[in-house]
Amino acid sequence: MRILIAQMNPTIGDLKGNTEKILRSIENGRKQGVDLVVFPEMALTGYPAEDFVLLPNFMESVAKHLERIVQASKDIGVIVGLPRYNPSTLEKECFNSAAMIVDQSLVDYVDKMLLPTYDVFDERRYFEPGNGVKIWSFKGECLGITICEDLWQHSGLIKTTYYRRDPIDELKKHHPTCLINLSASPYSLNKFKDRMDVCSKVANTLQCPLVLCNQVGGNDSLIFDGYSLYVTPKGLIHHAKGFGEDEFLVDLKKSATVIHVERNAIEDLYHALVLGVRDYFHKLGFKKGCLGLSGGIDSAVVACIAAEALGKENLLGISMPSRYTVEESKRDARLLAERLEIEFQEIPIDTPFICALDTLEPYFAGKQEDITEENLQARIRGILLMAFSNKFHLLVLSTGNKSELALGYSTLYGDMCGGLAVIGDVTKTNVYALARWINRKDEIIPQYTIDRPPSAELRPNQKDSDTLPPYDVIDLVLPAYVEDHRSPEWIAEHYQLDLNQVIDLVKKIHANEYKRRQAPPALRVSEKAFSVGRRFPIVQRWV
Amino acid sequence: MRILIAQMNPTIGDLKGNTEKILRSIENGRKQGVDLVVFPEMALTGYPAEDFVLLPNFMESVAKHLERIVQASKDIGVIVGLPRYNPSTLEKECFNSAAMIVDQSLVDYVDKMLLPTYDVFDERRYFEPGNGVKIWSFKGECLGITICEDLWQHSGLIKTTYYRRDPIDELKKHHPTCLINLSASPYSLNKFKDRMDVCSKVANTLQCPLVLCNQVGGNDSLIFDGYSLYVTPKGLIHHAKGFGEDEFLVDLKKSATVIHVERNAIEDLYHALVLGVRDYFHKLGFKKGCLGLSGGIDSAVVACIAAEALGKENLLGISMPSRYTVEESKRDARLLAERLEIEFQEIPIDTPFICALDTLEPYFAGKQEDITEENLQARIRGILLMAFSNKFHLLVLSTGNKSELALGYSTLYGDMCGGLAVIGDVTKTNVYALARWINRKDEIIPQYTIDRPPSAELRPNQKDSDTLPPYDVIDLVLPAYVEDHRSPEWIAEHYQLDLNQVIDLVKKIHANEYKRRQAPPALRVSEKAFSVGRRFPIVQRWV
Repeated sequence: MRILIAQMNPTIGDLKGNTEKILRSIENGRKQGVDLVVFPEMALTGYPAEDFVLLPNFMESVAKHLERIVQASKDIGVIVGLPRYNPSTLEKECFNSAAMIVDQSLVDYVDKMLLPTYDVFDERRYFEPGNGVKIWSFKGECLGITICEDLWQHSGLIKTTYYRRDPIDELKKHHPTCLINLSASPYSLNKFKDRMDVCSKVANTLQCPLVLCNQVGGNDSLIFDGYSLYVTPKGLIHHAKGFGEDEFLVDLKKSATVIHVERNAIEDLYHALVLGVRDYFHKLGFKKGCLGLSGGIDSAVVACIAAEALGKENLLGISMPSRYTVEESKRDARLLAERLEIEFQEIPIDTPFICALDTLEPYFAGKQEDITEENLQARIRGILLMAFSNKFHLLVLSTGNKSELALGYSTLYGDMCGGLAVIGDVTKTNVYALARWINRKDEIIPQYTIDRPPSAELRPNQKDSDTLPPYDVIDLVLPAYVEDHRSPEWIAEHYQLDLNQVIDLVKKIHANEYKRRQAPPALRVSEKAFSVGRRFPIVQRWV
Repeated sequence: MRILIAQMNPTIGDLKGNTEKILRSIENGRKQGVDLVVFPEMALTGYPAEDFVLLPNFMESVAKHLERIVQASKDIGVIVGLPRYNPSTLEKECFNSAAMIVDQSLVDYVDKMLLPTYDVFDERRYFEPGNGVKIWSFKGECLGITICEDLWQHSGLIKTTYYRRDPIDELKKHHPTCLINLSASPYSLNKFKDRMDVCSKVANTLQCPLVLCNQVGGNDSLIFDGYSLYVTPKGLIHHAKGFGEDEFLVDLKKSATVIHVERNAIEDLYHALVLGVRDYFHKLGFKKGCLGLSGGIDSAVVACIAAEALGKENLLGISMPSRYTVEESKRDARLLAERLEIEFQEIPIDTPFICALDTLEPYFAGKQEDITEENLQARIRGILLMAFSNKFHLLVLSTGNKSELALGYSTLYGDMCGGLAVIGDVTKTNVYALARWINRKDEIIPQYTIDRPPSAELRPNQKDSDTLPPYDVIDLVLPAYVEDHRSPEWIAEHYQLDLNQVIDLVKKIHANEYKRRQAPPALRVSEKAFSVGRRFPIVQRWV
């Protein structure tokens, strides 16, 4: 049997556009004489479709578009992911399903059994779990069909959730000759290896090949990396490309050679962010963006990513120096823009800053300078960026990193302005790693930008280290607390840190929830982003 | 049997403070010689505790604090809500439970069976459903114990979710002599009547009295109204007060007289918002707030609510007139502040506005005036409010209403600045109703503020109606689309509206998701708030 794996990039809710992509891939499969074309989980609606599946007219439209796909399947098999109404009255109205279609007839559905309801996943909000596994006898093969999470229980890699059943164990007794998995498995650092481990384990248990068709593309904060897989009990045979649409052919009858693949984590991170920016813009209908260039490393890395995502002709960098901005910052901002060949403007903010101070002077008489004046500068920059956004229809990119966002080391309505927080889920440590990777051949980001101590430049000779512990301490505490839910005591002991320092960082993380709640969506690249999938109250007294 | 219903206001995660409240109520019960003291759902942690229940050290601390409650129960019974670890390995690690405690011993737990996972509720993210109903034979009574949602399936009032089981039907064969329900049932308009209908139906099915102990207080966007109930098959016997802590005694042996209660919806809405503001400030440790007073109705209503919530001495109103602000607006802003006896400042924004225009002039040369200049004014006001917030440690209240937020008729980082959107879930229609209710005895809000046509005053003679359809049209479409998921076709037909107008409004609702995602949390008072419980992607192509 010959199978075409169609790793596609759907847009959420674009039923017409997604259907057309599906029809094109079916046509490609027909031209190549394949027996079956496989699409990702929820390919018809895009994943995650969120509350759209609660709208009756949306679900009616899904059914109509499915009918178009069925009609297009003359002499060919298709497996496509979509939500469907639950025919019996159970807790939820829908299943997350795979439709099995052949020769213009809808043969059957398989419904996802394991519904992730943790982190960024809310499937129990929408879906009823499938009743059990199904085997599709098709052209002499005995195909086991599963959807995403259905594979994962078997791997033991899921934290805090232990499903009652394991679809892989249940499939075992049916002796599938090939396992097909429709996925919408989001990217996070090193996800390729995890996904590969899961597939190897399953292929070994079932002693048959496994084909995983993953969604690719950015949908709000989530980035789907693609990397669809063809795995046998012996190992990886082929993977689709990462971070782009792709199709590949699996011939189950042909002998297959195992390949060994190791991905460079930082290279993948870079491409993930580029894809996230590009899809956010293009799926929203935006062509051009702008960002503030401070001469610091965060905005430099964001500028490199955005220039690649949008094209250098579609990015405007704005340097907005104040009285506290050193010459090197101005120089490096300009130098970076020149090297990236992006449009560049320099707008000194001292005049509007003085004007704002004068306006406030009668009300603030007798008060010391404090954080107010620092925030004012950041907010004037925010206003200017937003004015450019309004006047020239540019989407503003915010440039804060995860370590800053964690601790609230940023100004709400100031440097936090923007439509998308490109590196809002990248720790400062990984911002440096990205900068080094960007400069791996030529110096694009000025070396001084990388070497200088980080500073917000909102008062004379300010350094981040005046206010914050070293970033290497922050970036130890951050994943341990935020991703792994370790206690401050465990973290202090494990990393030999001062307990009070760890407690202080944890307090800061919670105390700044209010700021992050108003931050632009950040591209998720870690196992636990602030932007999505982490739900803590603003008002709390635990810490 | 005599039961004390302790309608308490917990703070999320404040295990120590909540435990102390619980111990005080047990002591009150002991003084009054009751047999049993009943607390709300999740009284120990506050509801919703969100991802705190995923932290192992949080759950350890819950267990320790429960031990203090057990120790305090000498000669008295206690039923208290809390999360507890699931002793068997099922899908989730926790149950949402009621601990049954008597005379210093933990007798048993009842686990919530029906776990709402829709709208603002995410219980399947955290909890495993309880296995079945339990009866507690205590002092000659046969007590059925249920938690919140366990009552609701029986009423048929839940939309889009149909649980497999109905705990009330299952309890029937055990012939309870009294049903106890621990609730954390959030307020929305007219919730009192719904909750009363649910309880009546259950009391009638079981033919026994029902005691519902509800949480009260504001936790982020959610407001819990209290109104704990004592209901028999004949009707309502007593309710605790709304919007405040309260205790009342139920004597199951005493004959009871049915009372009839009808709540004024707008009066309750007002008190809900006052409670929401007060708890948001005080639980965060803020005493003082500020807001922009435009002379329009939205900021006037918010000022009245905030002055009551915080005390007039803790509120600062700032009028920030521009060249487009008419004299009546300035007059009414000042007049309202005088009547409320709050601190007042007037800061004209023309100078900083001109300064910003001058700064941008070289870059905008040859471009027409447009929305950019309108937003600039709103953002300068935002900057000034935030400067006051920083300098004087004031929490800024934003004043946008739900109808505006729905359609994006507001400026991000401008009038949307703030820590809390007080009326962000109140339609313009209900803002007027609140204003009339506030003025029911004396004119507090200047009559002209109510009578004038709404205007943002960001360009000469601007009216909301230049840009938006009439608010009475918006406020028909809004609940039909957002709360009831009606299609544009249904709405146009049902309300005899132009279909294109409805489609345009629905498009605007989705197109402005990006703005709302960065809005401050809004107090939820409808069945579907934008702020919480509604999850649509920013990037989508459905509409």
